[in-house]
Amino acid sequence: MTAITPTKPQEVVANLSQYEASYAAVKQRGLKLDMTRGKPSNEQLDLANEMINVLGPSDYKAADGTDTRNYGGLDGLPEMKAIFAELLETSPANVIVGGASSLTMMHDAVVRALLHGVPDGVGPWGRGKIKFLCPSPGYDRHFAICQHHGIEMIAVDLDKDGPDMASDEKLVASDASIKGMWCVPKYSNPTGETYAASVVERLAAMKTAAPDFRLFWDNAYAVHDLEATTDPLVEIIAACAKAGNPNRPLEFASTSKISFAGAGVAVMASSAANVADAKKHLGIQTIGPDKVNQLRHVRFFKDAAGVRAHMRKHAALLRPKFEAVSRIFERELGGTGLAAWTKPRGGYFVSLDTLDGCASEVVKLADEAGVKLTPAGATFPLGKDPRNRNIRVAPSLPPASQVETAMEVVALCVKLASARKLKA
Amino acid sequence: MTAITPTKPQEVVANLSQYEASYAAVKQRGLKLDMTRGKPSNEQLDLANEMINVLGPSDYKAADGTDTRNYGGLDGLPEMKAIFAELLETSPANVIVGGASSLTMMHDAVVRALLHGVPDGVGPWGRGKIKFLCPSPGYDRHFAICQHHGIEMIAVDLDKDGPDMASDEKLVASDASIKGMWCVPKYSNPTGETYAASVVERLAAMKTAAPDFRLFWDNAYAVHDLEATTDPLVEIIAACAKAGNPNRPLEFASTSKISFAGAGVAVMASSAANVADAKKHLGIQTIGPDKVNQLRHVRFFKDAAGVRAHMRKHAALLRPKFEAVSRIFERELGGTGLAAWTKPRGGYFVSLDTLDGCASEVVKLADEAGVKLTPAGATFPLGKDPRNRNIRVAPSLPPASQVETAMEVVALCVKLASARKLKA
Repeated sequence: MTAITPTKPQEVVANLSQYEASYAAVKQRGLKLDMTRGKPSNEQLDLANEMINVLGPSDYKAADGTDTRNYGGLDGLPEMKAIFAELLETSPANVIVGGASSLTMMHDAVVRALLHGVPDGVGPWGRGKIKFLCPSPGYDRHFAICQHHGIEMIAVDLDKDGPDMASDEKLVASDASIKGMWCVPKYSNPTGETYAASVVERLAAMKTAAPDFRLFWDNAYAVHDLEATTDPLVEIIAACAKAGNPNRPLEFASTSKISFAGAGVAVMASSAANVADAKKHLGIQTIGPDKVNQLRHVRFFKDAAGVRAHMRKHAALLRPKFEAVSRIFERELGGTGLAAWTKPRGGYFVSLDTLDGCASEVVKLADEAGVKLTPAGATFPLGKDPRNRNIRVAPSLPPASQVETAMEVVALCVKLASARKLKA
Repeated sequence: MTAITPTKPQEVVANLSQYEASYAAVKQRGLKLDMTRGKPSNEQLDLANEMINVLGPSDYKAADGTDTRNYGGLDGLPEMKAIFAELLETSPANVIVGGASSLTMMHDAVVRALLHGVPDGVGPWGRGKIKFLCPSPGYDRHFAICQHHGIEMIAVDLDKDGPDMASDEKLVASDASIKGMWCVPKYSNPTGETYAASVVERLAAMKTAAPDFRLFWDNAYAVHDLEATTDPLVEIIAACAKAGNPNRPLEFASTSKISFAGAGVAVMASSAANVADAKKHLGIQTIGPDKVNQLRHVRFFKDAAGVRAHMRKHAALLRPKFEAVSRIFERELGGTGLAAWTKPRGGYFVSLDTLDGCASEVVKLADEAGVKLTPAGATFPLGKDPRNRNIRVAPSLPPASQVETAMEVVALCVKLASARKLKA
């Protein structure tokens, strides 16, 4: 991670009073724009409205005759498993369909390991002090799970090919208390990169001091392309099996950003041993997930191809917003050396880096001008960005015109904060 | 619990060969009847079929404008909270609406306590050995949660007014490792009794050595009357508050046996401090429950009165099945002193007691004659009925005619097992 370096620092400082004046004017506009969370827009949700009543009043039987209205079916309807398996490029036997939330499935997996341990393990993780590797910037809710349960987080670098493998390999090889690693391998949150094949293969094969090390593989954006082509990602379950570490990956995904956010269907995929272990625990905590909602998804999407076709409609709605971010940042900050930003080919976020030490000031200035951003630092463990430079921009929710306005404000705040800092 | 005593033991023994002959004949019939689980019948589920598509394709906004299709809303829609609050006779502020499963909410509450402790507590329950009181016969899935997490179970007696308070008070007063107690206070599973007012008040007021003792109050059958009148139950949250133990109760319920089993809506209700504590944890494990399904329930039932009206339709379908059980048992076993059975005014089960030592033989005989019953012992901690006499009968799923046939087989198996035992 090279530092952001201003191209013409004197010129930036010279413009300070001009930035202050522009900022004062912006504050007068009384804007109220929210760019904090990666929520789908109303137009995206509308794409699935037919799903709400796709089931007729007597359409409640799954293909195998299961009455979805009644109890049972711990791991999901076969046809829902088949769709997820194809989208995740694995086999239905590796799939457990859950309730509406993949975050809940991840949290459950961590809690199960804390209380009971995992296959290949030597007992409950919660018996001693454990640690997780956290490629950063990353997803704040992953880090929150660790913080909540007292799991120490080790922030590790993330570059355009994924996590920095040389340092990760060294860490996991030498410290048996490192039990897990959070990964968003495709269109990573918030930096947008997809892990290179060589990185995935090294993650699958690396020697870990802990015999029960787990990759928490949050494939949240598996089918969330913005462009016509998808980033290739090596399938993790097969890669780990091939490397002799079949039980290493715990993969998660959901339809939250495909059908409805919070009323979708979530999934965990893993090895036979991990699936059997998870089902043993699931049988204690539930009689089964909501199968009617699974059937609704099956009827609406029909198959994996249906999901992919649907995602092209999402991309058509999202692309102009991401283009707006790029366009404004390029116009306002291009060549200044005051910031660097990602141009993701998928996912939900643009990652903006400012000069070291400026991110929290930019977020504060933007907030005071009516543009809410994710808190600075949120993308790092414990909310602490060591260089105070990363800002997660979430352009999905507001209309493109508002995204444009918000980004103009953010760009101005970057210039103002930079000028103030360079002058100091 | 007085033992079942045969009225005319010699006569029973004398009839052994006749019972054997009848049993051999029944086996020839090739029956295949399943009375194992408390599942609603197709006809009951059909009552809610309109709910499947009660929402029009543009009907997704809650009363407060919340778009139920998008993220957010940790504790449920206000209108869903209001319905549950009225049904449970508490205030909406005490209510957290969850996903589809109350079992999951109970399990979550236990896991949170194991890992983090509870308000008024002195740290995580999982740090030491803990115990739960288990009124027995009780619900096997409650006991499974304890067994799974290594919580020691103390079986305590249950009579027609609820748990035997004298012994319970003594136990909890003297043993600080007793942290919890499972209660199904209304139409108890499987014995059908509703806790008397004096019992509820003693549970609310009893002195516990553990400062963080919790009543796990599974009010699964709160509105599941079979008759025109309901059994009165003292509201536990107010009772505990009045007794100076506001954080003692954790109440659970769901619409699984109201709308759809497994695709309903679950709820936890408790004190302000417990609700705040639960929400702190929930915010880590989920972004929110399925609000579209909540809205579906709100539109279909409209209000608590709508739920009650709906439950009268359930009762009309269930009553003939429960009457069939009573009728056959009375006809076949009445006056014999070979069995005693409950005649519940609500809930999902009939509890059948045989002569001591005969329950597992009856279940085995019935199974071999094509009538599957819940395994003997399932209603006791660790699946061990110390007197081997209790059998849970679940008449809800099969048609009344099949219930009748199945009960004839069970009654015959009771006579046969009794005769064999008395002869031995």
